[in-house]
Amino acid sequence: MTKKVLVLPGDGIGPEIVGQATRVLDALIADHGLDMAYESALVGGSSFDEHGVPLTDEVLEKARQADSVLLGAVGGPKWEQFEIAVRPEKALLKLRSELELFGNLRPAILYPQLASASSLKPELVSGLDVLIVRELTGGIYFGQPRGIRTKDNGEREGFNTYVYSESEIERIAHVAFRAAMLRDKRLCSVDKANVLEVTELWREVMTRIGKEYPEVELTHMYVDNAAMQLVRAPKQFDVMVTGNMFGDILSDCAAMLTGSIGMLPSASLDANGKGMYEPIHGSAPDIAGQNKANPLATILSVSMMLRHSFGEEALADKIENAVSTVLDQGYRTGDIYTDGMKLVSTTEMGDAVLAAL
Amino acid sequence: MTKKVLVLPGDGIGPEIVGQATRVLDALIADHGLDMAYESALVGGSSFDEHGVPLTDEVLEKARQADSVLLGAVGGPKWEQFEIAVRPEKALLKLRSELELFGNLRPAILYPQLASASSLKPELVSGLDVLIVRELTGGIYFGQPRGIRTKDNGEREGFNTYVYSESEIERIAHVAFRAAMLRDKRLCSVDKANVLEVTELWREVMTRIGKEYPEVELTHMYVDNAAMQLVRAPKQFDVMVTGNMFGDILSDCAAMLTGSIGMLPSASLDANGKGMYEPIHGSAPDIAGQNKANPLATILSVSMMLRHSFGEEALADKIENAVSTVLDQGYRTGDIYTDGMKLVSTTEMGDAVLAAL
Ligand SMILES: CC(C)[C@H](C(=O)O)[C@@H](O)C(=O)O
Ligand SMILES: CC(C)[C@H](C(=O)O)[C@@H](O)C(=O)O
Repeated sequence: MTKKVLVLPGDGIGPEIVGQATRVLDALIADHGLDMAYESALVGGSSFDEHGVPLTDEVLEKARQADSVLLGAVGGPKWEQFEIAVRPEKALLKLRSELELFGNLRPAILYPQLASASSLKPELVSGLDVLIVRELTGGIYFGQPRGIRTKDNGEREGFNTYVYSESEIERIAHVAFRAAMLRDKRLCSVDKANVLEVTELWREVMTRIGKEYPEVELTHMYVDNAAMQLVRAPKQFDVMVTGNMFGDILSDCAAMLTGSIGMLPSASLDANGKGMYEPIHGSAPDIAGQNKANPLATILSVSMMLRHSFGEEALADKIENAVSTVLDQGYRTGDIYTDGMKLVSTTEMGDAVLAAL
Repeated sequence: MTKKVLVLPGDGIGPEIVGQATRVLDALIADHGLDMAYESALVGGSSFDEHGVPLTDEVLEKARQADSVLLGAVGGPKWEQFEIAVRPEKALLKLRSELELFGNLRPAILYPQLASASSLKPELVSGLDVLIVRELTGGIYFGQPRGIRTKDNGEREGFNTYVYSESEIERIAHVAFRAAMLRDKRLCSVDKANVLEVTELWREVMTRIGKEYPEVELTHMYVDNAAMQLVRAPKQFDVMVTGNMFGDILSDCAAMLTGSIGMLPSASLDANGKGMYEPIHGSAPDIAGQNKANPLATILSVSMMLRHSFGEEALADKIENAVSTVLDQGYRTGDIYTDGMKLVSTTEMGDAVLAAL
């Protein structure tokens, strides 16, 4: 049956980079037998400008009906003046939560062709390939109660609740252990179990689920140490699993270690293989509309979609190989440009990938 | 009047490194007119082993009476089996909270003599000098309610509360702005105001207090981006201010950027200049008792104490100069050793500092 994909370009550079990713989809549909149809809709700031909310019920319903979602990026300074409830980011959070996309996979891979882009010394990062598994629909992002209230003494206080139930921890544990089984079979669970009770439970449940995966070597690390170890010796890690907030911080840190966040895709999966796929980078309002942004992370998000949601391994490989080819050929957008390479625009990079497909 | 200092060596390498720091104190008292007396007490795992609690009421009372506290490090795998309430780390948290040491100063400085120890490329870190100001007695570390409870459906859930009141934010804001005034007058406040209401209030209060310091350039950054920017271009920062949990993660990340966490001291201050001073590194149980640990972070913590609590700028400078001298002379403990340098033990490093005083 024809797979249905909802495409949500979003804000800033979103439409430009998603534009190149849908060209790739078009090519796969036309020439490589991919049985897929997609439609586009507004999300984030562009939805807010049009409809007064960052995600309309109609678009949410379309996302529910779709087999998967491809998203560009949302947000920008233009909307920072509004309250959290209607900001572009809220659309992301609502999609994650309503679609129960609890399993967020964030690979941090160093492309050999881009090795010199890393801030770290080459020997520390060459061959880097870490997968961060972040819980995406729980933790302090969604915990209740939350808000800003006035205390008895008249001053205000802000409060949020960091909460995880056993079943929430169990299901993300399975995602992480299964991912580790397909890789080097090493899983590092990150918590702050020496201070926070919620992560004491996290550690206990991880340990228990670990017994179902005796081949996987499970270790535990405090989040402060994990941030240190990522900088000191990132190659020590295979798969890392952590909660929503720590995962937000550590996955961005790990991504930046590669020096090329314009290259990194991500997947957010529900229990049945449906997913939302998006680049790890943001909406880069400073270069929006200039045909400068790197579309490769979004194109690689398509590859993750084909692999994780549609079982189209061969087509996923085809995209990854094409990306590797254009890097070998020296094509570079501004964010990954180094001396001697060919500086290209967003659309030219799309052209190059299509040619290499 | 004679200043009273409580010395808490703690666990692991704690006693060894503090031993060298008190030799420095002894020398300053004997030969340089420092009017100070100190006594030592058990804390952390060593207190737990002796008294069943990581911090006795008696030691807490001594800490209250003292003008400042010098601490080594606490914790180790030996005590990880016990519940959070009696673990060594609890002593630290209780001291911070009971003494109201809300202002945590964590400098991340790259020593030119140790430049090659950083994971980062030299041009990105040479001359690095970032000060992280971390709120230390509030936030999710201390928020109520907290614990592990059983839900109606029979499964357990862990929960913690992330909370800040306006007055808590105001006082750490003043610490940070004052620190920025003494430096490059740039302050970056780190929050997650696009998701967490508590940090929305944080941002609002920081902005308001900033108006009292018009000379300081205040910027705001989301914590995930801050973790990225620390890896990408750490020299963009002068002073950073953030809450307890984010500060725990970011200060360790920043410290590791220098490649020499064995060199970094910290101060935890109350509103009146009283402080607890300790190295940023942990208790390193793997090398405890081997006379291998680097005592310089603890010795530099003494220097911070003299500067921040006792106004002894000249003696503080003397210690810092002595540390610089021993580095110039090529003395290195194992953690900072590189080819061609002189590998020394903990006590030999102490000897070298005393000779250089
Ligand atoms: C935009 C923001 C709400 C989001 C998050 O914090 O999860 C982003 O940082 C991410 O990591 O996808
Ligand atoms: C030991 C631990 C409780 C402590 C903390 O999390 O604050 C430590 O990591 C630190 O940063 O001083």
